[in-house]
Amino acid sequence: MNGRSRAAVIDCLQYCNYSEEIFRDLRAGGVDAIHTTISYHEDFRETVDNIGRWNRWFETYPDLIFAGRTAADVRRAQAEGRTAVFFGLQNCSPIEDDIGLVEVLHTLGVRFMQLSYNNQSLLATGCYEANDPGITRMGREVIAEMNRVGMVIDMSHSATRSTLEAIELSRRPIAVTHANLHEWHPVPRNKPVEVLKALAETGGMLGFSLYPHHLKDGSDCRLDSFCAMVARAAEIMGVANIGIGSDLCQNQPDDVVQWMRRGKWTKEPQTERAAFPRQPEWFRSNRDFGKVAAGLAGVGFAQADIDAVMGENWLRFFEHSFTPGEESGAPSAIPLAAQGRG
Amino acid sequence: MNGRSRAAVIDCLQYCNYSEEIFRDLRAGGVDAIHTTISYHEDFRETVDNIGRWNRWFETYPDLIFAGRTAADVRRAQAEGRTAVFFGLQNCSPIEDDIGLVEVLHTLGVRFMQLSYNNQSLLATGCYEANDPGITRMGREVIAEMNRVGMVIDMSHSATRSTLEAIELSRRPIAVTHANLHEWHPVPRNKPVEVLKALAETGGMLGFSLYPHHLKDGSDCRLDSFCAMVARAAEIMGVANIGIGSDLCQNQPDDVVQWMRRGKWTKEPQTERAAFPRQPEWFRSNRDFGKVAAGLAGVGFAQADIDAVMGENWLRFFEHSFTPGEESGAPSAIPLAAQGRG
Repeated sequence: MNGRSRAAVIDCLQYCNYSEEIFRDLRAGGVDAIHTTISYHEDFRETVDNIGRWNRWFETYPDLIFAGRTAADVRRAQAEGRTAVFFGLQNCSPIEDDIGLVEVLHTLGVRFMQLSYNNQSLLATGCYEANDPGITRMGREVIAEMNRVGMVIDMSHSATRSTLEAIELSRRPIAVTHANLHEWHPVPRNKPVEVLKALAETGGMLGFSLYPHHLKDGSDCRLDSFCAMVARAAEIMGVANIGIGSDLCQNQPDDVVQWMRRGKWTKEPQTERAAFPRQPEWFRSNRDFGKVAAGLAGVGFAQADIDAVMGENWLRFFEHSFTPGEESGAPSAIPLAAQGRG
Repeated sequence: MNGRSRAAVIDCLQYCNYSEEIFRDLRAGGVDAIHTTISYHEDFRETVDNIGRWNRWFETYPDLIFAGRTAADVRRAQAEGRTAVFFGLQNCSPIEDDIGLVEVLHTLGVRFMQLSYNNQSLLATGCYEANDPGITRMGREVIAEMNRVGMVIDMSHSATRSTLEAIELSRRPIAVTHANLHEWHPVPRNKPVEVLKALAETGGMLGFSLYPHHLKDGSDCRLDSFCAMVARAAEIMGVANIGIGSDLCQNQPDDVVQWMRRGKWTKEPQTERAAFPRQPEWFRSNRDFGKVAAGLAGVGFAQADIDAVMGENWLRFFEHSFTPGEESGAPSAIPLAAQGRG
């Protein structure tokens, strides 16, 4: 890092099996803030239990972590040598069928919510459905409410039409916190150029995933291949609209893969690759963000752009995303057109 | 009022059937802050629904009310000509059997919780039980947790031994938000001198109730009788440890009395006086706090002491009660001994 002050490092999606070990990894890796998934298919009451578990961790490890609420908490984390933890939901199950729970969960610290996870939800369509009718009636209401209170719309696991409609309907820039380029590794979870351009044109953000199923060559993906994909994304979206959302699931037991895929919607085991894949050797834990930064330098990124991708872009996005009453304000990231690219 | 700035007016317990009419009454009455009951016998999920209802009111009437979180919000309310609304629970039903819900509810804005309501609870004994074994095992844990997060222990509906033990166990001053002197009107809900002295000696607060069942001569109680009782309480407790907690239930339908008394614990109607009694003609709505202040002047209170009783004492108590990490700090009100009285 160069310059007067160290740039922020932010991982905008992870779901580890947290423990003191991982909180120490975060510090060792210089990670100033994470967006962590607290619920997938849990209902409201179960989500509150998950928040309770995090509250105990915050109470037990105050020298390592604290609850992140605003963008300013990232700079506070840097100043205090701790990691700010922002909560997110990968599905809308926690709001059940009750729009009032959006504000309640925001008050409890939730700053991101996916409108759907693989399947059709009450709000939007998931990326594994055969048909995508777009944002639902309730989806439109919930998007407006998320805009109002300051909760980021995340379309990582959503289908293309729903994603494009969410980008258009939202009065604030939205995010795909953890996915890669479909043209680099064509799986349903990775995003086509059409989505990336629409995201960038509205000041939205893409976070790059390091989960092997989202990587070309899977567990054997090479760092230079990943970093070349980042460079290609910068060409498509502008370097100001991209960051990291590693999808790191460190220390999770394999049955968590079944939970993610099956939730409560099916009795059938979703057997295909129902174990966590081996991580690439260059990204195995929260200690490895420096290797990613070095890889970006290796494919020609300038230091300022590396700082942007490793955290400063997310921080700027956070600054206009988490507090109420800014839904008609300036876009939180720099739209593609303003960067003179695309 | 005299002096440079207007003194704060705080009603530290009410449970009206809120509407725009009552929010306008609060402004017309110059009430800067209220502590309102949001739940009696509701469980956690039902309490969240009640919070959701308040969130809609805050969104609909931002020129009249806002969610109070800290003592500073009372001064903000004065500056902005609005009323800060602080949430409270009259029973521990909303935390169910889960100590983690104390912090969750505090994050959602709850600043007061009674440890019991008339009956035995998981935490303490109510004032209508035949036997009072004192604070329970879980009660001790919850008192410590309330101290930690900044939620006031309220013993208004609790029995004497439990109340005295709560005062002793709590590391922060506690409150009886709405009750009167037992010697003035001897009913189980009013408090004996022993409790009042123990409260005051630890910097705790008593809020005077204007609910007719707590008043000598009930609905026909005279203002000068009530104010003489306040003067007597000031002799016992010191003028710094008393305030108003009107127990105003404006516009509530009579079936709410059954809900308060029966909750979910009995199938039998609790028929005795199961309707709201007529309020004294001098205190019928939130517009009438000025009459109480005038009554205090009528029995000889100096203006500074009237300001203290009408709100400034509660404000000082709020300053040390609502935020985490002060449980070993200075008492929030002036202990009786320091006032040279008693």
